[in-house]
Amino acid sequence: MANHGVVAIIGPGLIGGSIGLGLRANGLAERSIGVTRSDASTKRALTAGVVDVATTDLAAACAEADLIVVCTPVSGVPAACQQAAAAARPGTVITDGGSTKKRLVEAVEQALDGSPVRFVGSHPLAGDHRSGPESARADLLAGRVVVVTPTRHTDPDALEVVKRLWAGLGARVESMSPAEHDAALAKTSHAPHVIAAALAAATPEELLGLTGGGWRDTTRVAAGGAGLWRDILLDNPQATLQALEAFTEQLGRLQQAIADNDRDAIYRHLEEGKLRRDALGS
Amino acid sequence: MANHGVVAIIGPGLIGGSIGLGLRANGLAERSIGVTRSDASTKRALTAGVVDVATTDLAAACAEADLIVVCTPVSGVPAACQQAAAAARPGTVITDGGSTKKRLVEAVEQALDGSPVRFVGSHPLAGDHRSGPESARADLLAGRVVVVTPTRHTDPDALEVVKRLWAGLGARVESMSPAEHDAALAKTSHAPHVIAAALAAATPEELLGLTGGGWRDTTRVAAGGAGLWRDILLDNPQATLQALEAFTEQLGRLQQAIADNDRDAIYRHLEEGKLRRDALGS
Repeated sequence: MANHGVVAIIGPGLIGGSIGLGLRANGLAERSIGVTRSDASTKRALTAGVVDVATTDLAAACAEADLIVVCTPVSGVPAACQQAAAAARPGTVITDGGSTKKRLVEAVEQALDGSPVRFVGSHPLAGDHRSGPESARADLLAGRVVVVTPTRHTDPDALEVVKRLWAGLGARVESMSPAEHDAALAKTSHAPHVIAAALAAATPEELLGLTGGGWRDTTRVAAGGAGLWRDILLDNPQATLQALEAFTEQLGRLQQAIADNDRDAIYRHLEEGKLRRDALGS
Repeated sequence: MANHGVVAIIGPGLIGGSIGLGLRANGLAERSIGVTRSDASTKRALTAGVVDVATTDLAAACAEADLIVVCTPVSGVPAACQQAAAAARPGTVITDGGSTKKRLVEAVEQALDGSPVRFVGSHPLAGDHRSGPESARADLLAGRVVVVTPTRHTDPDALEVVKRLWAGLGARVESMSPAEHDAALAKTSHAPHVIAAALAAATPEELLGLTGGGWRDTTRVAAGGAGLWRDILLDNPQATLQALEAFTEQLGRLQQAIADNDRDAIYRHLEEGKLRRDALGS
């Protein structure tokens, strides 16, 4: 496996911290530097042990780095990339972990226009309702998918470096355009989040004692940070609305079948869902 | 803890098998008899070890039983109760584990009209997407809710026997009318199942490789048996449609907020879902 030298991780939380742990466990870095926005977060990252050193000095960390991974919430990615690029040496590779890609990659490429650093968009599909470095694990990405989203501006060598980073952490790397990524993730992640949040909010509080494992699973992601998910939805509105439209059409068919007391249609639609779910495994 | 004597469990699958294991682990029965519909199922229950003996002879088992627990799918409950009552001694207590209660309890009470056995409707909130005696656990009901649904026909002593059964297995027992049960469970279980099934079916198969933990959790219950859930929905259509209506209204508010690019409204609706979900815990 390639060694990535000094790796700066901006935002060593669940994902960033897991990258730090994974780099160390697999001997993939000379050193990892966590970059946080407060002394409290620096201390938290060090206490959790997810990076070798931690600092609030983004510029100093990026000046030293051979590879920079930006793991802030999506709304903070362009600014963090711009600050990192201003401090980094020419040719330094920068990637991110944002859940949206089209507007984000456009914003980053615009912010880095003329800069000698090399950016590649990434999205590790490993977030969950937990957060923070305390939840990080060296094998969080093992067996998970990371989507990389090269554009016509992407340097091919930088793309290879970033693919090797994720593959080294055990992930399966898929490459697609930022727009393809956002259309797919709207269906597999952003719309499901909206559905889970709406279901949770529509359930009267006094009935929570009568929920079982089904409600618990179906609404789990609704516990994710509202600000973080607001920014994801603001970044990918059209594809998310289209995915929700496809969902409500399918839901409408089931509602109609129930209203019609139509045994066969209810069964058929439930079975469509079961087959799709079974295709994934538990 | 009271000893329930000889307990016949009609349908020793996930729930019935867990009752058998729990009775044994807590010394709550003299003997448990699993009643199945085929020799293959008899063997399966014995191999899993969830009951002391197993048989396909429902009448012989029920003639011996002090307590009968019917754990078939909802569509089979009334007929099983009728057959059990025809064989049971006068005064024998019968309960069930069906996920719906209003039409089911009405059907059972009608089927048992004039019979000297004593029926009490129950619903242990412990089902999940798995099934079969192999998934049974002695502590499946520990800390879970079991709803009992007495009517004006219910014998108070039989109600106490059934409450003691569930409490002895570690469950928290809640008592309400069959109609109240169905209205509540439509919101906490039946509508969420329909939503999960619609979401799973609406997700293109070629995108399954781009799903993460969120989609996986949100659609998990869709793997449940389509026939079993069809019968639940056929048994509780109006309350389920009302619950789906409340959900689609809340979803519509989120869709509108996304379409309007309304930061505050998106945040507010996501936060409503998060607060409700957080109130339950992980």
